Amino acid sequence: MAIMLGPNRYGKAEIRLLHVSRDDSTHVITDLNVSVALSGELTATHLSGDNSAVLTTDAQKNTVFAFAKEHGVGEIEDFALRLARHFVASQEAITFARVTVEQYPWDRLGGHSFSRSGREVRTATVSHDGTDSWVVSGLHDLTVLNSAGSEFWGFARNRYTTLAETTDRILATAVNAQWRHATPVSVTGWGESWCAARDAMIEAFAGTHSYSLQQTLFAMGQRVLDTRPEIAEIRLSLPNKHHFEVDMSPFGLVNGGEVFYASDRPYGLIEGTIRRDDAPPPGKAW
Amino acid sequence: MAIMLGPNRYGKAEIRLLHVSRDDSTHVITDLNVSVALSGELTATHLSGDNSAVLTTDAQKNTVFAFAKEHGVGEIEDFALRLARHFVASQEAITFARVTVEQYPWDRLGGHSFSRSGREVRTATVSHDGTDSWVVSGLHDLTVLNSAGSEFWGFARNRYTTLAETTDRILATAVNAQWRHATPVSVTGWGESWCAARDAMIEAFAGTHSYSLQQTLFAMGQRVLDTRPEIAEIRLSLPNKHHFEVDMSPFGLVNGGEVFYASDRPYGLIEGTIRRDDAPPPGKAW
Amino acid sequence: MAIMLGPNRYGKAEIRLLHVSRDDSTHVITDLNVSVALSGELTATHLSGDNSAVLTTDAQKNTVFAFAKEHGVGEIEDFALRLARHFVASQEAITFARVTVEQYPWDRLGGHSFSRSGREVRTATVSHDGTDSWVVSGLHDLTVLNSAGSEFWGFARNRYTTLAETTDRILATAVNAQWRHATPVSVTGWGESWCAARDAMIEAFAGTHSYSLQQTLFAMGQRVLDTRPEIAEIRLSLPNKHHFEVDMSPFGLVNGGEVFYASDRPYGLIEGTIRRDDAPPPGKAW
Amino acid sequence: MAIMLGPNRYGKAEIRLLHVSRDDSTHVITDLNVSVALSGELTATHLSGDNSAVLTTDAQKNTVFAFAKEHGVGEIEDFALRLARHFVASQEAITFARVTVEQYPWDRLGGHSFSRSGREVRTATVSHDGTDSWVVSGLHDLTVLNSAGSEFWGFARNRYTTLAETTDRILATAVNAQWRHATPVSVTGWGESWCAARDAMIEAFAGTHSYSLQQTLFAMGQRVLDTRPEIAEIRLSLPNKHHFEVDMSPFGLVNGGEVFYASDRPYGLIEGTIRRDDAPPPGKAW
Repeated sequence: MAIMLGPNRYGKAEIRLLHVSRDDSTHVITDLNVSVALSGELTATHLSGDNSAVLTTDAQKNTVFAFAKEHGVGEIEDFALRLARHFVASQEAITFARVTVEQYPWDRLGGHSFSRSGREVRTATVSHDGTDSWVVSGLHDLTVLNSAGSEFWGFARNRYTTLAETTDRILATAVNAQWRHATPVSVTGWGESWCAARDAMIEAFAGTHSYSLQQTLFAMGQRVLDTRPEIAEIRLSLPNKHHFEVDMSPFGLVNGGEVFYASDRPYGLIEGTIRRDDAPPPGKAW
Repeated sequence: MAIMLGPNRYGKAEIRLLHVSRDDSTHVITDLNVSVALSGELTATHLSGDNSAVLTTDAQKNTVFAFAKEHGVGEIEDFALRLARHFVASQEAITFARVTVEQYPWDRLGGHSFSRSGREVRTATVSHDGTDSWVVSGLHDLTVLNSAGSEFWGFARNRYTTLAETTDRILATAVNAQWRHATPVSVTGWGESWCAARDAMIEAFAGTHSYSLQQTLFAMGQRVLDTRPEIAEIRLSLPNKHHFEVDMSPFGLVNGGEVFYASDRPYGLIEGTIRRDDAPPPGKAW
Repeated sequence: MAIMLGPNRYGKAEIRLLHVSRDDSTHVITDLNVSVALSGELTATHLSGDNSAVLTTDAQKNTVFAFAKEHGVGEIEDFALRLARHFVASQEAITFARVTVEQYPWDRLGGHSFSRSGREVRTATVSHDGTDSWVVSGLHDLTVLNSAGSEFWGFARNRYTTLAETTDRILATAVNAQWRHATPVSVTGWGESWCAARDAMIEAFAGTHSYSLQQTLFAMGQRVLDTRPEIAEIRLSLPNKHHFEVDMSPFGLVNGGEVFYASDRPYGLIEGTIRRDDAPPPGKAW
Repeated sequence: MAIMLGPNRYGKAEIRLLHVSRDDSTHVITDLNVSVALSGELTATHLSGDNSAVLTTDAQKNTVFAFAKEHGVGEIEDFALRLARHFVASQEAITFARVTVEQYPWDRLGGHSFSRSGREVRTATVSHDGTDSWVVSGLHDLTVLNSAGSEFWGFARNRYTTLAETTDRILATAVNAQWRHATPVSVTGWGESWCAARDAMIEAFAGTHSYSLQQTLFAMGQRVLDTRPEIAEIRLSLPNKHHFEVDMSPFGLVNGGEVFYASDRPYGLIEGTIRRDDAPPPGKAW
C-alpha cells in the first residue's frame, strides 16, 4: 500500500480585469473575472517543494493582463482560447489548461459613461490539452418569473406528501446554463451565438405552459438545440424560487393569487442535460 | 445611580412580498422587501416580560401581507405611509412607526413573464409619529463608471502620501442615495419623482468633468435639487470603486490606459449631504 | 433659495491589516479591518474640485499600515485613538476623525500557527474632534441559542394576530452590541473590559428565563452596566432568529419540541439602549 | 438527429433543520443544512409534464424532518445514509439518491444554552444506487495560517514573472476537504473518524515546513491517509489567501515581516487528490 498523488491542478482565480477600448471617441469597456487552472507534471512541487516546473499563479495573473493589452479581449471564448493555448504551449510541464471567464454586462450612458446592468453574467470555459480545445459557453443569474401558465399536480403521493395540487402557481428561477459547442463557430460568431441561445431560453421559459419545472427545463434546452446547430449539449441548473400564496383566511380575506411571500430556503433544485443523439463526445469539455 | 431603558424599537424585518396585479390580461408584479420598526410605551416587556402592549412581529408581517391585498401596493411611498399610520393609529402603545421598503425591478418579457433587472434597488423610508409623516425616497446599488473625464491631482501631501497625480483615471461608484421630500407630491407622483431624481444623478455623474469624487457627489446632489423642487435634501454615500492601471513595464509593454484591475478592498468612501438653505427641518425623517 | 453642502466625510474603508508580532519565538497575530472617516473644511473639493485640503484616502491607508509598524497595534481602542488623533492633529483642514476597527479572532495551534475562530468580531469606534475623544467598544455576530427557558405569551391581539402563545420556544439571536465608555480605562484595560462585557452578556442571555426577547435584551445590557462601572451606555440590536417547530401531525407524529426549521427571513429585530441615569453626555460618540 | 434528455436529477436543497435532544436535563442540539438530489426514470415529467413518478421536493423536505423525529439524527453520515436508502427503496422511479449534509458547530454555554462556534463546517455526502452506498465526509471553511515556516522560491520564470522569491512568507488558506471512506466504520465511529482526520490535517499544516502550498496540500492528505486506514482518498481545495508585506520604504521604514495586507482577489487556488494505490474504485461516491 502506498499513498500517491492523484489528479491535481492549480492556478490564479478571480482576476478582475477591466479593459477599455479607446480606438474611437466612443469607449468600449469589457469587465471580466478570469480564473486559470493548470495541470501537468507537477509531482515535484507536491512531494518535495521543488518548484522548478511551477509557473507562479502571480505570473498567470500577469499573463492575463498582458494578453488583454497585446491581443485585446474580444469575445470571451476567444480570449480564453488564446490564454489556454498559451499556457500549454509555453510551459513544458503544463499539459492541460482550463480558463474560465465571467463577463459582467454594462449599459451605455454616453460616450465614456456606463451603468452596470445587473442582468445575467455571461460565462465561457475553455479547456485545452495541447491538441484539442473545448469551448463551453453559458450564463448564470438570469432570474425569470411567470405569473401565469404554471401548474403542478398529479405527482406521486406518500405518507410525507402534504403539498396541495395547483393549476395556477408562480414559477420563478435563476437560470444557470452551460452549453458545449459541437462545431467551431466563426471568429465573430461567439457573441451572436450566445445572444441567440439566451433568447431561446427566455422564449421557451415564457412560452411554455408548464406542468413542472422539469418540463420547462427540457423545453428551454430543446429550444436552444433546435435553433442553434453549433450547440451540441446544454446543462441547466434551475432553483425553484418558491413564491407561496399567503393564507389570508384568518383575516377574513380571500387572497385570490394576488399576494405571495418569497421564500429563501429550502428551494427545489432541478438539474438536467439536453443533448443531440449525434453529439460528438464531450472529451474534456466539462 | 440607576440603570434605565433608553430609546428602543422592534419590528419584523425583511418581509419578502410579491404582489401580482391581475386586473388585466397583462399582469403587473411588484417585488418588495418590507421592514417595520415600532416604538412607544414598551417598558413593561423590557423590564418584566409583560407583553400586553406588544403587537407581535408576526402580526406586523401579517398586516403587511393583508394590506397588500386590501389596498394594493401602488407606489412604495404610499404603501409605507399606509402601514406606518395604521400601526400608530391602531395600537395604543405605539407612538412611532418607521416602515422601510426595498423594491426590486423586473423587466417585462410578455404578458405574464418577467426577468429580474439587476439594476438599482428603489427604496422608501416612511416615519410617522401620530401627527406628522416624513418620506425619504432613495436607491442603492446603482453602479456607474466613467472611462474618461476624471482627474485627481493637487491634493495635500505628507510623509505617507505616495499616490501619483493623474489627469485620466477611471471613476466608478455604486450610488447609495436617500432624499427627503419637502413638500408632498401628488398621489401619482412618487414614481415620476423617483425616476427624475435617478436620471438627474446619472446625468450629473456622466456629464461632470471630475476633479474629485466629492465634486461629482456634490454635482449629483445639486442636479437633483435643481430639477426637483419637491426634494429638500439628499444624502449620498459613494464608494470609490478603484480600478488601478496595471503596470506593464516589466513585460516591456506600455499600458496606455487600456487594462485595469478592479480592487475589492480597501475602497474610498465619500459621503455628503446636499440641501436647500430654506429646507424645512428634517423632523424625524432620518 | 440656495443649494448648499451639508455634513460630509470621506476616508478609506476596510483596510485589511495583519500584524505579526515577532518579539518572541512565539508569534502573536492581530487581524484587523480598519476604516477611516474624516471631516472638516472640505468645501473646495466639493464645489470646485480643488483638492489642496484633501489628504488622499490612499495616504490614510498608508498611515494605518505605517502606524502599525511604528507603534504596534495593541488593543484596537488604542490603535484607533492613535490614528484618530493623528489625522486631526496633522491635517489642518481636518477637524473630526472617526476610526472604526473590526478584529477577527484566531486560535493558537502552535508557536507560529493559527486557526481562525469564527466566533464574534470585536469592534472599536473612536471619534476625536481635536479636543475630546469618545470610545465605543463592541462586537457583532455572537450567535447564541437557548433551547429551554423561553416563553412568549400574553401579547396584544388584533385582527392580524395568528401567532400561538407558547411557554417553550427556541430563543436564538446574533448579538450586535456597542457600548460607550464613561470613564477612561487604563492603558492595559480595554481587552479585559471587553472580555468581561462579552461574558456578562452571555451569562445574562443564558441565565435569564425569558418572556420576550426585549426582556432578554434589557437583562443583557443591565448585566453589563451592573458589572462594568467604566461602561456608561450599551446599544443592542438583536435579530430574532426564528426556529419554528415543524408540524408533524400530517405524518401521524407528535413533534414534542424536537425538530425545528430555521427560517432566514423575515425575522424579528429588537433594538434597545440601556444606560445609567448619571451617564455623561454622549457627545460625538455615536 | 434527435434531441434527447441526458443525465438529470432534482430535489430539495438547503433544508435548515435544528434537532433538540431532550433525553436529559442537558439538551444536545444538532444544526444541519440538508440537501437531497434524486434521479431515476423521470423522462415523463421532462417531456410532457406527467408528474406521476415525481416525489415532490416538498415531500422530500417533510421526510427529512420526519426522519429526524422518528430515528433521531446522530452522526450526519448515518442520517444521510438512512435518507438516501429510504428514497430509493420507497419510490419505484427513483434509482439513485444523493444526500448532502452540512453541520454547523455550537459550543455549550450551559445545560440549554449554546453559542455558535464559527469554526469549520462538517459535511457528509452519501450516494446510494439501490445496492451500494458511498460515504464521503469532509469539511469546509477551516481557515488556518502559518506566520513562519513557509518559503516560495525556485519557481519557473518567463516573460511575465515578476514575483520575488521569498524564504519567509505568510501561508494561509481556508481548507475545503472531502474524503472517501474505503471500509465501513462502526456505527459510532463517524464522529471519531472525522475529528481525527481534521486534526491530522491541522497538524500537517502547522507542522510542515512549506516550500509551496502544493507541498502542504500533499502533506495534509498524506497525514490523513497515514493515520486513518478507513479513508481511501481525500480531495483538497486550498485557496492561497495572500497576505502581502507592505512596502514601507516610501515612509522611511523597514517592514521586517511585521505588517501585511490581506488581499481578497485574485487568489491562488491549489487543488489535489491524494489516495492509496490499493483504494477500491470510487464508484458513484463523487
